[in-house]
Amino acid sequence: MSFKVPEDITVCLEDELARKFLESIWGKMPTYTCVIGNTETAKIPGLSAAGANPEATDFTPAADMELLHYGKCKCIDGVPVTPDGIPTPGIVAMSALKLVPMPLFVVSGGLRVKPHVPFFELDGAPGDDIRTGRSVKDPEKVFDRAVLAGKNLAKMSNYLVIAESIPGGTTTALGVLTALGYDANGKVSSTLPANPHDLKIRVVEEGLKASGMRRESFKNDPMAAIEAVGDPMMAAAAGLAVGAAETVPVLLAGGTQMAAVLAIVKGMDYSMLSNIAIGTTRWIAKDGNSDLRSLVSQIGKVPVLAANLNFSTSRYDGLKIYETGLVKEGVGAGGASIAAIAASEGKITARTILGEIEKNYARLVSRR
Amino acid sequence: MSFKVPEDITVCLEDELARKFLESIWGKMPTYTCVIGNTETAKIPGLSAAGANPEATDFTPAADMELLHYGKCKCIDGVPVTPDGIPTPGIVAMSALKLVPMPLFVVSGGLRVKPHVPFFELDGAPGDDIRTGRSVKDPEKVFDRAVLAGKNLAKMSNYLVIAESIPGGTTTALGVLTALGYDANGKVSSTLPANPHDLKIRVVEEGLKASGMRRESFKNDPMAAIEAVGDPMMAAAAGLAVGAAETVPVLLAGGTQMAAVLAIVKGMDYSMLSNIAIGTTRWIAKDGNSDLRSLVSQIGKVPVLAANLNFSTSRYDGLKIYETGLVKEGVGAGGASIAAIAASEGKITARTILGEIEKNYARLVSRR
Repeated sequence: MSFKVPEDITVCLEDELARKFLESIWGKMPTYTCVIGNTETAKIPGLSAAGANPEATDFTPAADMELLHYGKCKCIDGVPVTPDGIPTPGIVAMSALKLVPMPLFVVSGGLRVKPHVPFFELDGAPGDDIRTGRSVKDPEKVFDRAVLAGKNLAKMSNYLVIAESIPGGTTTALGVLTALGYDANGKVSSTLPANPHDLKIRVVEEGLKASGMRRESFKNDPMAAIEAVGDPMMAAAAGLAVGAAETVPVLLAGGTQMAAVLAIVKGMDYSMLSNIAIGTTRWIAKDGNSDLRSLVSQIGKVPVLAANLNFSTSRYDGLKIYETGLVKEGVGAGGASIAAIAASEGKITARTILGEIEKNYARLVSRR
Repeated sequence: MSFKVPEDITVCLEDELARKFLESIWGKMPTYTCVIGNTETAKIPGLSAAGANPEATDFTPAADMELLHYGKCKCIDGVPVTPDGIPTPGIVAMSALKLVPMPLFVVSGGLRVKPHVPFFELDGAPGDDIRTGRSVKDPEKVFDRAVLAGKNLAKMSNYLVIAESIPGGTTTALGVLTALGYDANGKVSSTLPANPHDLKIRVVEEGLKASGMRRESFKNDPMAAIEAVGDPMMAAAAGLAVGAAETVPVLLAGGTQMAAVLAIVKGMDYSMLSNIAIGTTRWIAKDGNSDLRSLVSQIGKVPVLAANLNFSTSRYDGLKIYETGLVKEGVGAGGASIAAIAASEGKITARTILGEIEKNYARLVSRR
């Protein structure tokens, strides 16, 4: 009898491969990694919502990692919120990790603000504004070190989850996907209620032009693409995936940013794609203002799974509002939920996870 | 039938506990961690041999970690050597790790020179000369973060090996053991042929005096002891041990420096001692110029195991010379060998390990 995908997980792409992937991780505990970074791109007015104001975005990844480790933030009061006051999707990932105590490792791709937790240092630098066309220094060094870390993590893991937290990351995703020759305009996601596609495209075009490189020269050179218009999370996440996927399955936990990581993995080592899936949220899967399916299917035959998180019945307005299409994904919210469901063989459901999220939300947000 | 200790491992202390510990790790793959740091103490003339000259000692830990990851160093040419040209014991640990591909993670306690490998950052600073009485900044922060890393590593590991590489480390070991009230004079080991005990004692006494603290006030405060006369490796290694030992066995891989780490663990969480053993080399076990057994038995009922590495039959003079009592231990040489023997259920022997060491020695040293 073939493996049945549980109700709380939707297969968005590559049915048969998705079922096989899910079967391979069923009942298994993964190692959870989250790659964080900062890029000046996040401070371009109107682009990112991962912080109430541009300077605050620098603290978001560090604060998210503290949330995962301690259940509360240390480098800021409260938790990261959007300009509208919507709490970070880190609460979702944290809640999944509370339900299933996966080993957790933070990886720095290049940081302006460092978290008060242990993290893997790969000697990456924080990223510059991609309009400079020189956004990331020496991504290949970071990639190579991440490969080593991925190989070693894989030795002790059933499978690896790779999540991200980097404000401004969908714009850099558009940048790298475009540089690598994919049709990504209008297809990357946004934390904001109105996805500023036109602004993102303008920013990317400005960066590609400023890089001084011919368009075609990027196509087979993912590291050059990151260097010009990428962000510091990308080389680290792609390196972890390449290092680990040789021996264990890898779940890229995120939305359209993980499509960019996937494209980088493909450019560095095509053969690894067959051991990789993307895990995201229902909010990304059903988002009318982005198109993860189109992006991934342009890259290769890679399954996309979505956790059917649904906050419409939540007691809290701050969570209900996720149903309007704000935030949607981040810190591996969807992948963490899929991993929790899979590790528990379906005993943990989307409803269980929402219950845990509400508990944490009440503690962290509503009583402030 | 009770478990039989293999020929190539000698029990030096706590027979029954040692047998139980070895049985608990038999046939199991550990996670190998190595904590590295730098201290200005290493540059006091006459103290340390872990580098041909004082400035070069800064590069030794980083170079050792590159050796473990790549089979060669990157931040220096060749490999670290003593003033007499004896190669680093990192070659022993590297060879054991080549025979048994344990997952490997480097942990920085505080570095002046960073290795070209991924490592755990705990936000520790390099250490000062202990004669200042203020040798390590905020060891408690590093300890707390290491506990978190240890907990997470333990979640995915059968057991944890914790090794070290820090030049000058036996002097700081004497410092912390003395501060914590143990009788350690003349009992810490040395890489040098003539152990400069008197110099070490003078340096420690100067540091304790300069700290301005009363002797008794250190006794129940391991963090204060590290802060005054310790080194940056200690809080990190002790934290990893405390974090991991709650759930899995921990093998402290080293000589008398690990007695200091053990004393710190005892001071922070006594209950963890029951899940810890020390693994070292035959050269430390039989050393007439130091006394690991006395140190450990003062601390608690903790087994000490020694790998019976014997280089007297080696084809290479640079290895044979280990039999004269030079170097003896470092980078977890003994613990790595014990772990390789145990993981292979004795199929890998001290002789197998020597064969691998000779192969690597020939490649790295003799043809330079």
